[in-house]
Amino acid sequence: MTPVCPGPHHEEERVLLGHGAGGRLSAELLGSVLLPALGAPDGPLEDAALLPGHPELVVSTDGFVVKPLFFPGGDIGSLAVHGTVNDLAMRGGMPVALTLSLVLEEGLPLSELRTVMESAGKAAGGADVPVVAGDTKVVERGAVDRMFLTTTGIGRRLPFMRPSAAGARPGDAILLSGPIGLHGTAVLSTREGLGFEADIASDTRPLHRLVRALAPLAGHVHALRDPTRGGLAAALNEIARDSRVGTEIDESRLPVPAPVAAACDLLGLDPLQVANEGCFVACTHESAADTALTALRSLPEGCGAVRIGNVVPDHPGRVVMRTLVGARRVVDMPLGEQLPRIC
Amino acid sequence: MTPVCPGPHHEEERVLLGHGAGGRLSAELLGSVLLPALGAPDGPLEDAALLPGHPELVVSTDGFVVKPLFFPGGDIGSLAVHGTVNDLAMRGGMPVALTLSLVLEEGLPLSELRTVMESAGKAAGGADVPVVAGDTKVVERGAVDRMFLTTTGIGRRLPFMRPSAAGARPGDAILLSGPIGLHGTAVLSTREGLGFEADIASDTRPLHRLVRALAPLAGHVHALRDPTRGGLAAALNEIARDSRVGTEIDESRLPVPAPVAAACDLLGLDPLQVANEGCFVACTHESAADTALTALRSLPEGCGAVRIGNVVPDHPGRVVMRTLVGARRVVDMPLGEQLPRIC
Repeated sequence: MTPVCPGPHHEEERVLLGHGAGGRLSAELLGSVLLPALGAPDGPLEDAALLPGHPELVVSTDGFVVKPLFFPGGDIGSLAVHGTVNDLAMRGGMPVALTLSLVLEEGLPLSELRTVMESAGKAAGGADVPVVAGDTKVVERGAVDRMFLTTTGIGRRLPFMRPSAAGARPGDAILLSGPIGLHGTAVLSTREGLGFEADIASDTRPLHRLVRALAPLAGHVHALRDPTRGGLAAALNEIARDSRVGTEIDESRLPVPAPVAAACDLLGLDPLQVANEGCFVACTHESAADTALTALRSLPEGCGAVRIGNVVPDHPGRVVMRTLVGARRVVDMPLGEQLPRIC
Repeated sequence: MTPVCPGPHHEEERVLLGHGAGGRLSAELLGSVLLPALGAPDGPLEDAALLPGHPELVVSTDGFVVKPLFFPGGDIGSLAVHGTVNDLAMRGGMPVALTLSLVLEEGLPLSELRTVMESAGKAAGGADVPVVAGDTKVVERGAVDRMFLTTTGIGRRLPFMRPSAAGARPGDAILLSGPIGLHGTAVLSTREGLGFEADIASDTRPLHRLVRALAPLAGHVHALRDPTRGGLAAALNEIARDSRVGTEIDESRLPVPAPVAAACDLLGLDPLQVANEGCFVACTHESAADTALTALRSLPEGCGAVRIGNVVPDHPGRVVMRTLVGARRVVDMPLGEQLPRIC
């Protein structure tokens, strides 16, 4: 007898790693299960939501399951603070308050918990945001891998700053505030002991000051997105999808640090799909692009800001890259997970 | 040679189950590790915090790790919504928005996820609060036990309602909105297959309408607390500690349903320490006690409201119970965990 592989309808559907990866599978899970169940409206999925009745306030939540807990450039504590501060910033919000919820594994050394919490406290202090509420649960050994954190942030939007993933317009310039690929390759290299961790550190950092530096251009800042899970490829595809525009970028302008390129080459990773935690994409009116670049470069965390392309009216929903050899290739939305547990 | 047991200073200190149980160990972890690391101010630990710059808004966060995911009366989805709605209500806040963050285990049946999310959506709808933001992470098999949820809520305080765990005053009446012990015994019985689950269902439900029913008495409602982890014993001890008062309750007035009493007897549990998810303690001015009871009883979820005792100037920080035989016994803050993973 030949073994028969049961079709998808014969087997119970199950959660896959890729469902949490920020790519197409994530979008499918959201669209087919989570949003309908929660009665959430269909619409652009933003990094942070408006608070009903308080349009000046934005709110965002994020779970952190990064492995290992400590990596070059940061740890789960600083990452959790920066990640949420940055999601607020992508809606033009300056952080007002954070909450922090912990799930701990029984037996976790208190010294590790203390180090992570001190790092979170330092990151929050560095972003001038208080941690106003928290919760701690402990589960028995084996029920969680060491420590997971969830941060929620509330931010107040800068006047007239109304960036949205749905706000990009044909003719806009596409800017990138710094190099890509550092966070994902740093975490992976540490986890797998690949040796790159001597040359690569995560870019985890708060981005709200860069966004504040764009405030004088407020009305010209149409879309902001930080390319975390799914990397730059996912961020550009989300903007293209939600704004119903095409985006075109130039490979020669992409800031990929040499050690990141080397690591990606060796590991078969696409640097466009690697997670970042310290840069963002901005779509601004063409007339404001140079001023925006100057403003970004005026801060240390934006010193590497570059223009990488344009928003175009053609091929709405698609991202096209002009490659180093002059060819054009479509940059797809990543399907699932290149690197699990990267944030 | 006699084996030598190393002292506490020779062994690395580790996280214990009790550190997450809402009792004395939880308070120690907060006071010695978490709050100092986060630079949080010392002060009463409230169910929800005030949002800086927006004193009418309160914010609360809670992680949910209950096992099993489904139990009589509810599941982790409804529990997560109710738990956060109730923490807001304990500060006089009506829910404005919720966020929901998921950590899922690879391989979890999508049907279970859908059921939990539909339950969360129904609970949110029932409390008239939208889920405005969310996040989903998936971790590999074995890195989390099925599914953990974290909810954060933002609420708007009712005018003149300023209840606080630090607000109880000598002479206040102590009211309880409903029977105790149902949630913890329902979850435990289901988890262990003890058979009580035919007679006991969790009391998980939203409490904000009961708090709204107290709004006409606003200035007379001094303290509210829902006795979740650590049960009524923890809630009364927290009020006594933070308000620097004594609390006295009468065992004969405590509403302990007969199946709960039977289950606790058999299992060696103290119903005063069992977690609840659908009742709260209110300390009101004596002159408002009867009106408050009538208001609570006017709603189905408060039909069992009773007066259980008084706030007294004696023995500040302590809870004393007059027992059925007329003796007085101190009700201690629970040390750690009677029942792990109850919420």
